[in-house]
Amino acid sequence: MNESLISRRTLGVTFTADGATVRVWAPLAETLSIRLCQQDLVIPLQNDGSYWQTTTDQLQSGDTYTFVLNNVERSDPASLSQPEGVHGPSQAIDTARFVWTDANWANIPLDEYLMYELHTGTFSPEGTFAGIEAKLDYFVELGINAIELMPVAQFPGTRNWGYDGVCPYAVQNSYGGAAGLQQLVDACHRKGLAVILDVVYNHMGPEGNHFTDYGPYFTNKHRTPWGDALNFDDTDSDNVRRYFVENVLMWFRDFHIDALRLDAVHAIHDESDLHILREIKQYTDLLMQETGRQHYLIIESDQNETRFIQPIASDGYGMDAQWNDEFHHALRVTAGGERSGYYADYEGIRHLAKSYRDAYVYDGTYMARRAKIVGKSTASHPGQQFVVFSQNHDQIGNRMLGERPSQLVSFSMQKLMAGAVMSSPFLPMLFMGEEWGELNPFLYFVSHSDPSLIEAVRQGRKREFAAFQTSVEAPDPQAEQTFDQSKLMWDRLTQEPHQTLFRYYQTLLALRKQSSLRHPNRESVAVVMDEVKQTLTLIRQHQPDASLVC
Amino acid sequence: MNESLISRRTLGVTFTADGATVRVWAPLAETLSIRLCQQDLVIPLQNDGSYWQTTTDQLQSGDTYTFVLNNVERSDPASLSQPEGVHGPSQAIDTARFVWTDANWANIPLDEYLMYELHTGTFSPEGTFAGIEAKLDYFVELGINAIELMPVAQFPGTRNWGYDGVCPYAVQNSYGGAAGLQQLVDACHRKGLAVILDVVYNHMGPEGNHFTDYGPYFTNKHRTPWGDALNFDDTDSDNVRRYFVENVLMWFRDFHIDALRLDAVHAIHDESDLHILREIKQYTDLLMQETGRQHYLIIESDQNETRFIQPIASDGYGMDAQWNDEFHHALRVTAGGERSGYYADYEGIRHLAKSYRDAYVYDGTYMARRAKIVGKSTASHPGQQFVVFSQNHDQIGNRMLGERPSQLVSFSMQKLMAGAVMSSPFLPMLFMGEEWGELNPFLYFVSHSDPSLIEAVRQGRKREFAAFQTSVEAPDPQAEQTFDQSKLMWDRLTQEPHQTLFRYYQTLLALRKQSSLRHPNRESVAVVMDEVKQTLTLIRQHQPDASLVC
Repeated sequence: MNESLISRRTLGVTFTADGATVRVWAPLAETLSIRLCQQDLVIPLQNDGSYWQTTTDQLQSGDTYTFVLNNVERSDPASLSQPEGVHGPSQAIDTARFVWTDANWANIPLDEYLMYELHTGTFSPEGTFAGIEAKLDYFVELGINAIELMPVAQFPGTRNWGYDGVCPYAVQNSYGGAAGLQQLVDACHRKGLAVILDVVYNHMGPEGNHFTDYGPYFTNKHRTPWGDALNFDDTDSDNVRRYFVENVLMWFRDFHIDALRLDAVHAIHDESDLHILREIKQYTDLLMQETGRQHYLIIESDQNETRFIQPIASDGYGMDAQWNDEFHHALRVTAGGERSGYYADYEGIRHLAKSYRDAYVYDGTYMARRAKIVGKSTASHPGQQFVVFSQNHDQIGNRMLGERPSQLVSFSMQKLMAGAVMSSPFLPMLFMGEEWGELNPFLYFVSHSDPSLIEAVRQGRKREFAAFQTSVEAPDPQAEQTFDQSKLMWDRLTQEPHQTLFRYYQTLLALRKQSSLRHPNRESVAVVMDEVKQTLTLIRQHQPDASLVC
Repeated sequence: MNESLISRRTLGVTFTADGATVRVWAPLAETLSIRLCQQDLVIPLQNDGSYWQTTTDQLQSGDTYTFVLNNVERSDPASLSQPEGVHGPSQAIDTARFVWTDANWANIPLDEYLMYELHTGTFSPEGTFAGIEAKLDYFVELGINAIELMPVAQFPGTRNWGYDGVCPYAVQNSYGGAAGLQQLVDACHRKGLAVILDVVYNHMGPEGNHFTDYGPYFTNKHRTPWGDALNFDDTDSDNVRRYFVENVLMWFRDFHIDALRLDAVHAIHDESDLHILREIKQYTDLLMQETGRQHYLIIESDQNETRFIQPIASDGYGMDAQWNDEFHHALRVTAGGERSGYYADYEGIRHLAKSYRDAYVYDGTYMARRAKIVGKSTASHPGQQFVVFSQNHDQIGNRMLGERPSQLVSFSMQKLMAGAVMSSPFLPMLFMGEEWGELNPFLYFVSHSDPSLIEAVRQGRKREFAAFQTSVEAPDPQAEQTFDQSKLMWDRLTQEPHQTLFRYYQTLLALRKQSSLRHPNRESVAVVMDEVKQTLTLIRQHQPDASLVC
């Protein structure tokens, strides 16, 4: 491990007393200069192996710049800001300028996390970090204690879930940029809220993606649904790994992010002895030793393979927790209506009971859709390693019409599902608006500028839902209306039955904090299933004297 | 684990008292029948999940058959014999008919293995297993105790190194087929010789490859130099894994093969919790418990990652040994002349000394060609886990003109290299003919029948050597002459200086068996290097009282 990475970012532009240091990994560059846009000045970088660098007093925080790479102008792969979007110049940002006021903040113990996933662009009327900040008292009133931001890395245009980001170090300009994010995190910490950031280390978005001009960021040794895999184990992969390790450290150190949610790690391909997730954990541990702050790594994985969440000391990758989609699938099937696609592998109440007991539904059992034995036993893993929910951005947004459960199941069923999540011996997560039964959909939306890409996304979406085709057309992902329709309608909170549901969520969250439910203790969970009556009784206990029957 | 796999093969045609059982994995089949060629009879198979099967008394050992799969006629993926080549019908073979006479044979302890790699087609004038059998006394006279056969799985035509095999269960008809191989192994065992078989589990050859008609044998999740990877971890991979596990067990159980050499395992992609090599080892262990016979798994890997050869109990894959190409590279650079291609990463004597000490040259060090830190320390691994050589089929045959060291270095240098290999604390391996300094090349040859494939191979070969282009053209791989030129010239053994070299090898092998060299004991190796004089002194010791200075 390279301990010098802990104290400061080395990639991109960083500021010290000597001025700005510029550093970029570009083994494919023959020549490389930085062009300072305001000064209209071009400074050649010195080649130091596969890295290029220089130090200059001409570049100030806030200035824009580009790299001139083999005579072509490109943004910085480690750009912290793209004020004119992914196609524009990069902007130097001195992250140390932000004055933090959260010195007294200590991360919440993971087993007490009560999470709330939100999409910055559609959560508030403003669609910005400031819009979220205006709602912090609301979160406290609701009773959650950790917000999870869908990815904020710069993406094309202003409308995107965030998984098309192409500047993993840059904070989306239309959300409020780097300073806006720092401001939000600081404000959250003052209110006692932790911040989880969703990061995408399994692919980069297609538009504005110039990584291959710089170096072998990708390898054709492995393939993902988005094309060639990021290069974590092929030629020159050490520097790609370092690029992502520095990214992790940046969020924790320079943005005070409390936890990362790593998107779809099953699409991160790495056959080297030291898996990249394990290396990320090692560096995170080193950072935590250095700063005394606690940070968590939470993965999304569809593999049901416990090596991801096994501690490093037991030869695992050391991830703190993982999303457990299977609890969701079993719950939704139990709630009725869902049978097709990935739901086909899930029976209702029997699988829900299994998930309460065993976390994974498939834990060494044959799964028809994959036509193989899937999963491992989670017996030795505590409840806090599994994040559960009755809905999330994917489960809603990957439906053709983006319907939330509020549009699919009865009011009582919504309450029952909320209770099912909250009473589980796992970590509960809400999706923005579910607490008042928001009726607006959460649709898939983009705002690309490349016409052929727009068409490809449209067609892809149509193909995906060809089987579902009814009289209704799949909404156009590129249309502004699709985005607008997906915004939360805060007015509903003042109306019934939304208000009642909100109070129900408040009560549930309070109960979770004050009762035996507080501790996601898997050892003392009793699940009694009645298949005839289709009921499930859950007995949760933490201390011998206090048990709760749900 | 499925213990029933241990006792008998289940795939393809097997014979019991009830007649022939036919079983094939074909999840992509809508209809599937077996056509018995001699009887001109078509019998439908019953669909049992993704397997199809039937039992018939119409099919006898020796009869030919095809499968009629969705109305297309195809050979059996688990065919044991292809009497008319890869494009012809399959032939049922009752492997139990062979009468073994090796009941008293016990495999040689791995640390005593003295290996001799050979290519069946070019080793003897006959180019057959019988041709090898005629030379068994020769092997004994030479002093090796294990022959390693380059792959014998059915390949297109009659001329091929064996890595284009498309019937992993069928023994090349032109070599003598299944019975011929059984006969050879039995004869070897009677002479005290072990038999190692090279098997290819990282790809299938292109010609005659109909696997994708049957099922998802391949996945585009991973890519290899030969295209989509074999599917060891994607949808329906359990049955692909089983196909290869049964193949391993067949060679050991039904052909009495002593060890397998698994080709290029770095191109076997598997990110599941249970790596396929580990599963192969588990089944091999089970078989050995059952039969009481010992079998070894030896891998070719370019990864220098010790998890492959780590015991299963220590979370490794449990492979017994691996080829150590790096010893070869360092030795060849030391011997002079080699600097380009993969040799560029190897210095001479310093790296040779390192390899004597540490097995891997790169064991946690930066390698320029891969532009990353490569390898792990082998400190805890005994010398018997590393196979070393001064030449092999790849190192010779992947040169444009296929020159052996005999054509590249002086007579004394050949002797020095042989001594360097034999005195190492690792397992030595010779390549056929090196023991008399064969002067014929070992070229790359094929005998495809598909004209576009022939042209592609020709062009590929030309491209590969474009940089080396001198006045000489790269030999045509498809030409019969290229194959003929690669045959050993046994007459040379009666001539000088070949006879002298042969006696030198004899002496070295005898010394290896009778001195401290016998035990590949890494603990008591002292390597003294003089960079100025370019000499290396190796002190080998096994018991305190007997040491040998080389």
